[in-house]
Amino acid sequence: MKVYSGSLENLIRELSIKDGSRLSFHHHMRDGDYVLNAVMAAVAASGAKNLTLNASALFNCHEPLLQLIRDGVVTAIECNYMAAKIGQGIAAGILEKPVTFRSHGTRPAAIASGETPVDYAFIAAPQADYQGNLSGKYGPSACGSLGYAMADAAFAKKVIAITDDLSETPLADFSIPGSDVDQVVVIDAIGDPQGIVSGTTKISRDPKALLMADMAVSAIAASGLLKEGFSFQTGAGGASLATAARLRQLMLKEEIEGSFALGGITGYLVEMLEQGLFQTLYDVQCFDLRAVQSIRDNPKHREVSAIHYAAANPRGALVDYLDVVILGATEIDLDFNVNVHTDSNGLIMGGSGGHSDAAAGAKIAMIIAPLLRSRMPLIVDRLQCISTPGETIDCLLTQYGIAVNPRRADLAQRFKERGLPVLSIEELQAKAEQIAGKPSLVERKGRVLADILYRDGQKISEIRQ
Amino acid sequence: MKVYSGSLENLIRELSIKDGSRLSFHHHMRDGDYVLNAVMAAVAASGAKNLTLNASALFNCHEPLLQLIRDGVVTAIECNYMAAKIGQGIAAGILEKPVTFRSHGTRPAAIASGETPVDYAFIAAPQADYQGNLSGKYGPSACGSLGYAMADAAFAKKVIAITDDLSETPLADFSIPGSDVDQVVVIDAIGDPQGIVSGTTKISRDPKALLMADMAVSAIAASGLLKEGFSFQTGAGGASLATAARLRQLMLKEEIEGSFALGGITGYLVEMLEQGLFQTLYDVQCFDLRAVQSIRDNPKHREVSAIHYAAANPRGALVDYLDVVILGATEIDLDFNVNVHTDSNGLIMGGSGGHSDAAAGAKIAMIIAPLLRSRMPLIVDRLQCISTPGETIDCLLTQYGIAVNPRRADLAQRFKERGLPVLSIEELQAKAEQIAGKPSLVERKGRVLADILYRDGQKISEIRQ
Repeated sequence: MKVYSGSLENLIRELSIKDGSRLSFHHHMRDGDYVLNAVMAAVAASGAKNLTLNASALFNCHEPLLQLIRDGVVTAIECNYMAAKIGQGIAAGILEKPVTFRSHGTRPAAIASGETPVDYAFIAAPQADYQGNLSGKYGPSACGSLGYAMADAAFAKKVIAITDDLSETPLADFSIPGSDVDQVVVIDAIGDPQGIVSGTTKISRDPKALLMADMAVSAIAASGLLKEGFSFQTGAGGASLATAARLRQLMLKEEIEGSFALGGITGYLVEMLEQGLFQTLYDVQCFDLRAVQSIRDNPKHREVSAIHYAAANPRGALVDYLDVVILGATEIDLDFNVNVHTDSNGLIMGGSGGHSDAAAGAKIAMIIAPLLRSRMPLIVDRLQCISTPGETIDCLLTQYGIAVNPRRADLAQRFKERGLPVLSIEELQAKAEQIAGKPSLVERKGRVLADILYRDGQKISEIRQ
Repeated sequence: MKVYSGSLENLIRELSIKDGSRLSFHHHMRDGDYVLNAVMAAVAASGAKNLTLNASALFNCHEPLLQLIRDGVVTAIECNYMAAKIGQGIAAGILEKPVTFRSHGTRPAAIASGETPVDYAFIAAPQADYQGNLSGKYGPSACGSLGYAMADAAFAKKVIAITDDLSETPLADFSIPGSDVDQVVVIDAIGDPQGIVSGTTKISRDPKALLMADMAVSAIAASGLLKEGFSFQTGAGGASLATAARLRQLMLKEEIEGSFALGGITGYLVEMLEQGLFQTLYDVQCFDLRAVQSIRDNPKHREVSAIHYAAANPRGALVDYLDVVILGATEIDLDFNVNVHTDSNGLIMGGSGGHSDAAAGAKIAMIIAPLLRSRMPLIVDRLQCISTPGETIDCLLTQYGIAVNPRRADLAQRFKERGLPVLSIEELQAKAEQIAGKPSLVERKGRVLADILYRDGQKISEIRQ
């Protein structure tokens, strides 16, 4: 029977996971996920050791994992994003082997190609039917898209779905077909809805963020790309949402019908779809309840796999058809290289996610970030930890103006013609140093905590202790 | 650019297809398909020789293929179904290597596993967007589901989509993601809508077929499976549709809510979905325009891949959850082995399609066929050409009564209790011979024209000249 009749713990025991096995998890339950901890506790109890854990992202809720690393249950970590609490554990040196960071597009491609095979994929499924068809859109723990789990399901040797909503009705609107799933096991709850998706998306009220949003929309308009067929990606942060809000006003006013918006989807983009400002939403992850409702009900809002979203595939991915992507940065250097993996002190608290994928694909990759964060400068001379190479970044927008990558003289010209405050990145750096002084750069020479792989599968930089 | 700017012929020339390459096609355009002939003519013109052609099915419209076989362009054929005109060509001995027949479930699994790799998949796409996302549901040549093409797209080394409806809107409701597609080429027409789907599905008016339909529904009711959650598959032939019609009446009368219907989908099953008699339709192929409209508009009507439909997968396929499947036969022997590949004269005019898959999966696989066709008997002592092994067939229903496989004494008992005319298969055979005399069986000893592979990948029988 595909639906396991016993407990998760019993199922894991029966799997007899061998030492050295490779286990995978997806992060659609985000900081509300119960599944990774529950599975890994059962795996530890089964006595397996020396495991590789490949998770699309690790959140603070996964802190119990640190003890399993100390105990030698998990001896290798691969992920696309790692929240600060896990990063602190890694910084303490508990893991001998460097963490392998990939991007949201590179991870599924590496699973598909066998570069990083998966022995057991554990898939948190908000709804599953008795045939093993899985959906993210229904059930008490609905998260919407299951895009990051699709490659795991398609390519892992063994696929176990963990659900808290078993359907006796055969699912029509499945995200993952039952032909990819070996077994389904039912537990009480796969996540805390409060942590899975936020109830509402909130636009920043910070005047600095609103100023940057205005400037960003002016820059997008100046670029010449904001016309019929415009395609767009942005994140769920306050400044990103503020930009989306301003963009909406402009698109409504100028009656511009875009083509698609992409990536992690918020209610803001849903409203733009419903207002006819986009024809299609391609959704690899829902960020809020409005997006979950929309992906369930609106046929123009389509769930896509992470490979389709962002893989560095000769066939192309959706990111390759982007006009503009708005991205963040914790640090950026004079060559426009961006760090989103560590904070200014070098502690891991993030990761590429789709950052480097969207930057490589979009016609304009625009970094929006304040010039200083708690007196720590955004711009540094030369980054040690590079998440996204500067050659794929087109401009940096701060509250003091826009620095355009010298490779994009055409763009600088357009911005200047529209009266936007264009400065060199060195000028922006000087401005920050006027305010907060020259930061003392510490070159980190400790042992390697993590390797960052770029989209071509090659190491682009490393994170040192 | 993903959308090729020139002609199909130019694209094929640029592909420089090497001698010995393996090319694949799907059959959703059925007897209206223009794509296979157009592509193969261009391939022949490019000078490539010694090619393997793997098509999910070959129809009479593909007759020009015979000349390419004579010319040595195509030297190996793999398919799941072959219509009579192609079969006649093969019977004439123009192909040295035996045809390899698989089933609808086995073909995609063999492509996925690399047992029969595909170098170039050519996918007739009723609609494609500029990113290479493909849909079967829209456009002047809409065929509905593209289920049989999905494995070709996912696993071929190079994937070429051929469309007559290029969308400037990014498709939300795609069947195949652009990340599976290398190039899109536009031609005037990919098929003749008259041949792709029939305008209406017609129920047989033949009194014999209606009698068998009545008996079939009584047998299904007697089996004990016709209750809440009932799942069902049937074909598009007159007797199958008549059975579906009678079944509908009974389910409405007894207020039975089934779970799903599966396979090739007709307007009849669509109406049953709309009347609440099924919760879900799983559709690997649309048989008529009503089904095409429904798969586009009704979220409970879901397109599924051929692997999900029917692969002999340790994870199970949808066929494994079937209660009852109604199947046809050209011949059946005393061990209930069924032939659907050849006519009574041994000429190839069909193939398994999903016959052997559904028979293996369903709780009851019921063959419905008239005892004689133009005085040729249905029941023979021992089949030379076995499409589906008798151990997976539960009963044979003819206008004279039902023969139950001795392995299913439980079923014979239930039928008898309900007063159904249960006879042994030998008794049915005797009845046919009373009417038409004992047929003279000719053992065919000519050279092997085709190998029939069963679901386990092993040869189950062969077709001789």
